[in-house]
Amino acid sequence: MIKVGIVGGTGYTGVELLRLLAQHPQAEVAVITSRSESGVRLCDMFPNLRGYYDDLVFSVPDTNVLGSCDVVFFATPHGVAHSLAAELLASGTRVIDLSADFRIKDAQEWAKWYGQPHGAAELLPEAVYGLPEVNREKIKEARLIAVPGCYPTATQLGLIPLLENGLVDPLRLIADCKSGVSGAGRGAKVSSLFTEAGESMMAYSVKGHRHLPEIAQGLRLAAGGEVGLTFVPHLTPMIRGIHATLYASLIDSSIDLQQLQQLYENRYANEPFVDVMPAGSHPETRSVRGANVCRMAIHRPQDGNLIVVLSVIDNLVKGASGQALQNMNILFGLDERLGLGNPGLLP
Amino acid sequence: MIKVGIVGGTGYTGVELLRLLAQHPQAEVAVITSRSESGVRLCDMFPNLRGYYDDLVFSVPDTNVLGSCDVVFFATPHGVAHSLAAELLASGTRVIDLSADFRIKDAQEWAKWYGQPHGAAELLPEAVYGLPEVNREKIKEARLIAVPGCYPTATQLGLIPLLENGLVDPLRLIADCKSGVSGAGRGAKVSSLFTEAGESMMAYSVKGHRHLPEIAQGLRLAAGGEVGLTFVPHLTPMIRGIHATLYASLIDSSIDLQQLQQLYENRYANEPFVDVMPAGSHPETRSVRGANVCRMAIHRPQDGNLIVVLSVIDNLVKGASGQALQNMNILFGLDERLGLGNPGLLP
Amino acid sequence: MIKVGIVGGTGYTGVELLRLLAQHPQAEVAVITSRSESGVRLCDMFPNLRGYYDDLVFSVPDTNVLGSCDVVFFATPHGVAHSLAAELLASGTRVIDLSADFRIKDAQEWAKWYGQPHGAAELLPEAVYGLPEVNREKIKEARLIAVPGCYPTATQLGLIPLLENGLVDPLRLIADCKSGVSGAGRGAKVSSLFTEAGESMMAYSVKGHRHLPEIAQGLRLAAGGEVGLTFVPHLTPMIRGIHATLYASLIDSSIDLQQLQQLYENRYANEPFVDVMPAGSHPETRSVRGANVCRMAIHRPQDGNLIVVLSVIDNLVKGASGQALQNMNILFGLDERLGLGNPGLLP
Amino acid sequence: MIKVGIVGGTGYTGVELLRLLAQHPQAEVAVITSRSESGVRLCDMFPNLRGYYDDLVFSVPDTNVLGSCDVVFFATPHGVAHSLAAELLASGTRVIDLSADFRIKDAQEWAKWYGQPHGAAELLPEAVYGLPEVNREKIKEARLIAVPGCYPTATQLGLIPLLENGLVDPLRLIADCKSGVSGAGRGAKVSSLFTEAGESMMAYSVKGHRHLPEIAQGLRLAAGGEVGLTFVPHLTPMIRGIHATLYASLIDSSIDLQQLQQLYENRYANEPFVDVMPAGSHPETRSVRGANVCRMAIHRPQDGNLIVVLSVIDNLVKGASGQALQNMNILFGLDERLGLGNPGLLP
Repeated sequence: MIKVGIVGGTGYTGVELLRLLAQHPQAEVAVITSRSESGVRLCDMFPNLRGYYDDLVFSVPDTNVLGSCDVVFFATPHGVAHSLAAELLASGTRVIDLSADFRIKDAQEWAKWYGQPHGAAELLPEAVYGLPEVNREKIKEARLIAVPGCYPTATQLGLIPLLENGLVDPLRLIADCKSGVSGAGRGAKVSSLFTEAGESMMAYSVKGHRHLPEIAQGLRLAAGGEVGLTFVPHLTPMIRGIHATLYASLIDSSIDLQQLQQLYENRYANEPFVDVMPAGSHPETRSVRGANVCRMAIHRPQDGNLIVVLSVIDNLVKGASGQALQNMNILFGLDERLGLGNPGLLP
Repeated sequence: MIKVGIVGGTGYTGVELLRLLAQHPQAEVAVITSRSESGVRLCDMFPNLRGYYDDLVFSVPDTNVLGSCDVVFFATPHGVAHSLAAELLASGTRVIDLSADFRIKDAQEWAKWYGQPHGAAELLPEAVYGLPEVNREKIKEARLIAVPGCYPTATQLGLIPLLENGLVDPLRLIADCKSGVSGAGRGAKVSSLFTEAGESMMAYSVKGHRHLPEIAQGLRLAAGGEVGLTFVPHLTPMIRGIHATLYASLIDSSIDLQQLQQLYENRYANEPFVDVMPAGSHPETRSVRGANVCRMAIHRPQDGNLIVVLSVIDNLVKGASGQALQNMNILFGLDERLGLGNPGLLP
Repeated sequence: MIKVGIVGGTGYTGVELLRLLAQHPQAEVAVITSRSESGVRLCDMFPNLRGYYDDLVFSVPDTNVLGSCDVVFFATPHGVAHSLAAELLASGTRVIDLSADFRIKDAQEWAKWYGQPHGAAELLPEAVYGLPEVNREKIKEARLIAVPGCYPTATQLGLIPLLENGLVDPLRLIADCKSGVSGAGRGAKVSSLFTEAGESMMAYSVKGHRHLPEIAQGLRLAAGGEVGLTFVPHLTPMIRGIHATLYASLIDSSIDLQQLQQLYENRYANEPFVDVMPAGSHPETRSVRGANVCRMAIHRPQDGNLIVVLSVIDNLVKGASGQALQNMNILFGLDERLGLGNPGLLP
Repeated sequence: MIKVGIVGGTGYTGVELLRLLAQHPQAEVAVITSRSESGVRLCDMFPNLRGYYDDLVFSVPDTNVLGSCDVVFFATPHGVAHSLAAELLASGTRVIDLSADFRIKDAQEWAKWYGQPHGAAELLPEAVYGLPEVNREKIKEARLIAVPGCYPTATQLGLIPLLENGLVDPLRLIADCKSGVSGAGRGAKVSSLFTEAGESMMAYSVKGHRHLPEIAQGLRLAAGGEVGLTFVPHLTPMIRGIHATLYASLIDSSIDLQQLQQLYENRYANEPFVDVMPAGSHPETRSVRGANVCRMAIHRPQDGNLIVVLSVIDNLVKGASGQALQNMNILFGLDERLGLGNPGLLP
């Protein structure tokens, strides 16, 4: 059994990790920390977990205790993993960070977008960006994994087949993304109230969202050069789900939709958690609710030069905790699908 | 492996059965029928199941094929199981009926509420009402199981500890129940549109709902005599979930809340799918979303004589397909929890 | 033009007052206060009001400025009106308080439920409970009006015809009420997040909710004696609306449903904002969304002794700001319907 | 008083027209037709209108009766206005058609997208496209008005300032639009069920949506030449609202955001129902719920060449019935704002 620690288990990525780990046959949660909820029983906070972790109580983070785990997940706001990762790594514990702390390779860039100095720049060289569909081999050897963000997962998986093959103009990419409200976390904010976010739709952070540099970094690697990306996130009145609508301009318009379809199917043929639907399909976010799947479909409207890729995930699963677990499975040499086998909850 | 057939797999109880069976280690879906969708691939209709049943295609019901299964689930409108059950039973197949066809023991009563003659009254004596918390021993020996309705499950489980112990006036029971819209099924009805059922709350069928005689029948058995029940169902703007708010008048007001709490805890101590929360708790329907659990709590407001029991289920799981699978597990001598282990999806 | 001041205009009852006043032909908002938002333009906070109050800016409450108004509305948490009302009344300004400060006549009772001493007990004798259907004549002469709470409005209007006529047992009343999330206000609370309150249903405060003594006080007046009321509020995943399901036991079972229907129709025949639907109807909360209407219907299930009344309002309109405006119209001798004429927004 | 007839009043644009007309001081609904609901009282179908049109009963369409009206609104599926408009116009009645029948000037194009021959091509030359911000003068003189579709209204108003001034490449326009479910009408369709459309997001008709040729026609007029438009509509889990996210590439990158802002403000300076927010704002659909407003804001992310315009409307108001009434006001020489003065319903 893999001994698991979770730092910061009071948010949505935390409870989602716990939900998934409850079904994992080879992992066991040994410790869960929260400064604010120390002493509270996990099940009193998240009654859906009653009967699963009845003895688990939030404790104040203690690196000795955490350091006795095989792996520690950080389900924390940015900055926390910076301060604890080095010590845990030194004790031989693997670290899987669901926050943004190690996603961006350039510490200056990170500091610019997050408004504070990078707290562990020395760890950046060894941190592996945990997108298995791109970095599976590196993940196997990693000590420190940066789990991709939700928008970045849906967007990169949707665009990289086009970019890796140089089929589209990398300087004119658009990602028009729609997220459920859980993407904003469990913090008490007026803008996330039912009465504010319900029955309404709005764009936000159009000037610049923190996921932009992360997405661009991944797309550059796929394209092998510079990219120009416009990223417009929207808040949608649903709890879970991201729908990325991706626009890219074909360089050579003679390629036809069936060739592109074949390309996507080949690219993801061996990926257990990417589902390429038939060209012209319309994936629904609810089809992946609670499931560790990125489901996508490609379109070429009016046979023009603009390719439209529709890519959906559950932001808390393939966009966070499910992907984190997928990384853990790879890291420990397990079947990548362990604990991640459930279909989406529909309706 | 148990060979499973499903009649009428295009509704919500059908797709939910398939979702749960996809994770069941000892059952395999061999055939799924639908007259209207014959020839359609299951996964084209329910894309959340892509990758799970890729070869399964809806077929026209054929009793020879169905009769080769170990068990056949009916996830059909009422009346269908009436016409097919006898033939299947004759071929040695067990029948688990999710419809209302065999729930009410009195064929006349059934005919009155469903507006048509009972089509298989000769099977009523052997039909077992599949509420494991009441009938587990009978279920083990059954050939034909009538899975309880959603409202009846939440209401009976909430009230029977009081009635079995003669603690409340059986003639003054009130069940004020709130259901998500999936309870109305997947049929195209104006009243179930997002634009009609969304952002609104209403009672319906206050004059008399078809679940009333079913609930009353179960409560009579628990009380060992007549009951008087007022049942008011409401439509609530959520997809899944039933919240039953149950009112009963104490006969002896000297009993205190902690004694009642103990009574409930004892009654359900060995039940894997009933969770009695501490007295005074407020169970949320989302805590059981997608899970085969009935979660409840008791209250005694202002220390008066009126006991209030709050009882929640997911209408599609403990209120339908999960309970059906629980019955199958019991029937075939399996661990009752197989395939039903996942926690609720929260948030 | 009536010169209007609003204290505490940043919550939902505040913005709703402003929405309604924007259409009122004989009132004009002169001042709106908020300590926390002082200096902010109203329209920057509530963009639905752009074009209506472009010059209005939140200011720190100043009793001189407020005292120059003909009427001041308090759309504040409890306690605020206590501290300011006397001074405003002294300056000749009428006060219409949407908070709970003057609803309960007994200062001790108030202190018990609100956990603090009553701050203006000397004003209680003259405060008029602003339920026009009961107190219209007193409202005409009032200086200080306590606008009823949302649950109390729906519940009292639904039950008083029965109690005024002594038709039901006053000691066995049940109000099972369902509220939209806006009833919890615009404060940033985890329990009101879209991700917490969405797709779920739960009861709350079953032990005792602050509206209980207010409702009981009103029902006692209608009954002319003691009442026993069990009040169970529920949180429902919708923004606006209250659905009260009210249960009362007939004393004389020989009265029939049509007699009761006639009684209700007569009781409210001259009320512009109470709509009695035909007996057996099922009012929807959306039918009163945005409208100053209490719509109700009576039922007698299975011709038993239990009468069920279904009563719906928009908690922010007839349950708060619309009723406040109705009070203002009465107070100033205007047509009671001014500014309150719009139908519900359906769908 | 203007005597109004409504053909097809059982859908959402019909009930919305009635809601708005209930508050219009100079119009009166004389007749409302529906073949399927003939004989039904309007208020029994739409209880929000109880007290407003208590004598109005659906009748079978009769051109004599309709021809006695000053104006007839068609709130019907496409094809109906084709068959009745000529006769009504002959009797001197003005026709305001909310359907798609007269929006597209090219009858062949219409036939291609709607899959049937155009039924009244001879009326196309005189039909006026009822977008007041473009065609106000023509509307004043019109006999037959084609009210724009919902997506076309939000998209055209958002893009025409750029196109009229030749600032962007007209061949690379993208409209990524999100609509509430009421856009799909009140018909009983599985895809519009609460259980299907709730808690999910999906694109649809990416291959080609019927609003595409209508939008393109309007944009060509603004651009004075060909346009290339990719239009991707999405279904969003809310009842009302359209959020159009519009992408256009600047031709001359030296123009700055403040100049663009000025351009938009000037273009709509005299428009009562277009609200240009400060550059960089994020309009919410709820801010226009129930209101006849198109609210928009422009962005220039990362100071690049791509301009992003966010444009929101209520699809049933400015996108249908409100705009129809605005047209009526213009046509009859009334204040354009009559009956359309209410602010959005927020929250």
